[in-house]
Amino acid sequence: MIAKIPPPYYAVIFTSVRTDNDQGYAQTAGHMMTLAADQPGYIDFESVREGEMGISISYWKDLDSIKNWKNMADHLTAQKLGREKWYKSYTTRIAKVEREYSFERT
Amino acid sequence: MIAKIPPPYYAVIFTSVRTDNDQGYAQTAGHMMTLAADQPGYIDFESVREGEMGISISYWKDLDSIKNWKNMADHLTAQKLGREKWYKSYTTRIAKVEREYSFERT
Repeated sequence: MIAKIPPPYYAVIFTSVRTDNDQGYAQTAGHMMTLAADQPGYIDFESVREGEMGISISYWKDLDSIKNWKNMADHLTAQKLGREKWYKSYTTRIAKVEREYSFERT
Repeated sequence: MIAKIPPPYYAVIFTSVRTDNDQGYAQTAGHMMTLAADQPGYIDFESVREGEMGISISYWKDLDSIKNWKNMADHLTAQKLGREKWYKSYTTRIAKVEREYSFERT
């Protein structure tokens, strides 16, 4: 799906390897998705998991929106729980989307 | 996993919805991964699929490397087959990775 605004905009690419500890994960992940969607500058969110590997991408209007989201109290708590319980490893990349094109079967 | 060179570098974010036509898909996907890894400017590749939804990201040194890869003959053929057979829809985004940080459980 094409984003709701044309480039340039920003992507936060979160690639992760999960532990086998699921305690509280689904509830927190759901809460974070809802909370993110309510933030100023939020555009969209896509997430795919295959076994322990996951890629989640949130799209944002600008870097300030990303910074605000990163530092929200509930989100900071979730990040801490992620490091303590849910993730073996992860990488977060902040990237500026410069171009996009889409195909849709007709 | 952290990329093998520090930012800035480029990401090609490919989000897709598959058809149920698997004919030739795995073979072509494998060939494309091998071929991409041989191209100048290639850094890394990550791909996750969950049901019909997929996110694949390739990382590149610069825009020229991406342009060359996009226009390689075998890759153009694969893209055409993708539109004809394997994908209901997809979006490709070209994004400049400006920052990254990683966590690894110790």
